[in-house]
Amino acid sequence: MTEFELIARFFDRPPTSPSVRLGVGDDAALLSPTPGCLLVATVDMLVAGRHFFPDVDPESLGHKALAVNLSDIAAMGARPRWALLAGALPDTDPAWLEALAHGFFALAGAHDVDVVGGDTTSGPLNLCVTLLGEVPEGEAITRAGAKAGDSIYVSGVLGEAALAVAALRGGIALDATALAACKRRLEWPAPRLALGQRLRGVASAMLDVSDGLTGDLGHILKASHVGATLDLAAMPVPPVIADLLHGSQRALALDCLLAGGDDYELCFTAPPAAASRMEEIARESGVPVTRIGTITASHRLIVNDERGTPLARVPRGFDHFARSAP
Amino acid sequence: MTEFELIARFFDRPPTSPSVRLGVGDDAALLSPTPGCLLVATVDMLVAGRHFFPDVDPESLGHKALAVNLSDIAAMGARPRWALLAGALPDTDPAWLEALAHGFFALAGAHDVDVVGGDTTSGPLNLCVTLLGEVPEGEAITRAGAKAGDSIYVSGVLGEAALAVAALRGGIALDATALAACKRRLEWPAPRLALGQRLRGVASAMLDVSDGLTGDLGHILKASHVGATLDLAAMPVPPVIADLLHGSQRALALDCLLAGGDDYELCFTAPPAAASRMEEIARESGVPVTRIGTITASHRLIVNDERGTPLARVPRGFDHFARSAP
Repeated sequence: MTEFELIARFFDRPPTSPSVRLGVGDDAALLSPTPGCLLVATVDMLVAGRHFFPDVDPESLGHKALAVNLSDIAAMGARPRWALLAGALPDTDPAWLEALAHGFFALAGAHDVDVVGGDTTSGPLNLCVTLLGEVPEGEAITRAGAKAGDSIYVSGVLGEAALAVAALRGGIALDATALAACKRRLEWPAPRLALGQRLRGVASAMLDVSDGLTGDLGHILKASHVGATLDLAAMPVPPVIADLLHGSQRALALDCLLAGGDDYELCFTAPPAAASRMEEIARESGVPVTRIGTITASHRLIVNDERGTPLARVPRGFDHFARSAP
Repeated sequence: MTEFELIARFFDRPPTSPSVRLGVGDDAALLSPTPGCLLVATVDMLVAGRHFFPDVDPESLGHKALAVNLSDIAAMGARPRWALLAGALPDTDPAWLEALAHGFFALAGAHDVDVVGGDTTSGPLNLCVTLLGEVPEGEAITRAGAKAGDSIYVSGVLGEAALAVAALRGGIALDATALAACKRRLEWPAPRLALGQRLRGVASAMLDVSDGLTGDLGHILKASHVGATLDLAAMPVPPVIADLLHGSQRALALDCLLAGGDDYELCFTAPPAAASRMEEIARESGVPVTRIGTITASHRLIVNDERGTPLARVPRGFDHFARSAP
């Protein structure tokens, strides 16, 4: 099968939105923007051996390649619209490609995303997804609006994906049920789009937690020129990590929770007056939201342990060049 | 140096257009579309050993990674606006990265393109550029409008880039001057943006020649439900290939000319009545434009040789899975 036939067979799907005037198959796509909206654009590249294990389930890989971008669009309070998918593939096994496409398009369909462009080549496995979204002008939520006194929130729970990575690399033994649950979080992240869009006009700053909570929150602090105090006792800790926090693996548990990465939850800030509205939004979105700390004027990030004592060493965020991993 | 510092050092440049409401540094960029325009979107992925030699000059690689996308935008008759650059890099040699950034941003600046997003990771060398442009609604030039009787045109000359690849792989010996000229065409393609935009309202169909003339023209024929006759005697043949056409390397010369790829010229069609306007447009754009054939109702592609006899075998276009190359 030739390159063109392969692409056509699995990845050329007719667009569902009339905003796509011309989709895959010309030199470029033609898209009709919504009047009154800004365009939102993000790109993520996933590399075998770095962001995922080479033997990963291709369906989950297709899902995740789009999910990490959807998470960025969610973090702006925006609505996803159009995706461009580029991939380098080491071979052209049709079953593998079909599963990849299935994972990708299932998630795309769930969020009304049309694939409008692509490029496929042979090469070491690499997927690069560009996602375009829209947000009403003036309503995007950036990293720059946090104010001293704002509450800090996070969606869902943290650390399970990182714990899966630690277990898969032999750093810790988990029972089969816990490993499966953590692996599911690693391989099938659920981008928080409904929550992100409901936070327009409520959250003062937001981002998605992809590289670990402390490192990512640090971007809000830097952009907003503020500091923060987080309370470990308030964190949404999944049971498998709660167990480890009280044992000999406490350091690993803290790393996973605070700096593990791959959570794809939203971290955001809002004035204290928004507390009751926040409960409604969490309920409407179907996603737990937990208040984990407070923005301060200090320009420092302090994490208090369960007894209120600042941690001497705050685990830091993920750096794709500083260690080899997914 | 960490990932964030590396990216910031070479790739974070302040946007020049007020259309960029928020550039690199948040979860996604915020862009203000031009009322009355459609958004034009394309992506290209370049892989070491496939699209370029691993020891390529990094400055030319930065240039080419953007140029191939600019060529797609040109082929729609559109104006480029915003780019997102993702890269997997095998190491973080600052001098190499600086040269890459220099090549990329020099071309971006020349065409008023702002880089509004990026993602950098370690991994086998891979550059993925998404380019967004704009075109007034109703004025984009697609592949689908060619009519029987239209003239077929191509910009510039064809085949030098492919001849450079043949020479660099030892398939043919070129003298140093000819090799340097051909290598320059391979590594520093000049996207035909001024020409593409001037062809709005004149060309009936257009695309860029990236995978070889016959294969790419085939896309116009298929999309427009027509055929074509090309005349070898009319082709814009560079002198180095003209010499080969008359000797023992005629087959290689035909391959380079008709199916070599990496030309990044525009191939387009227009009614015969546009002939004199075409001369003006070529002059205004500063790019030679040559009439190379005619669209037919036949649904076949015929290439007549210098004596008007159809070639028995028409060299076909490039397929990234069908042979190993850049």
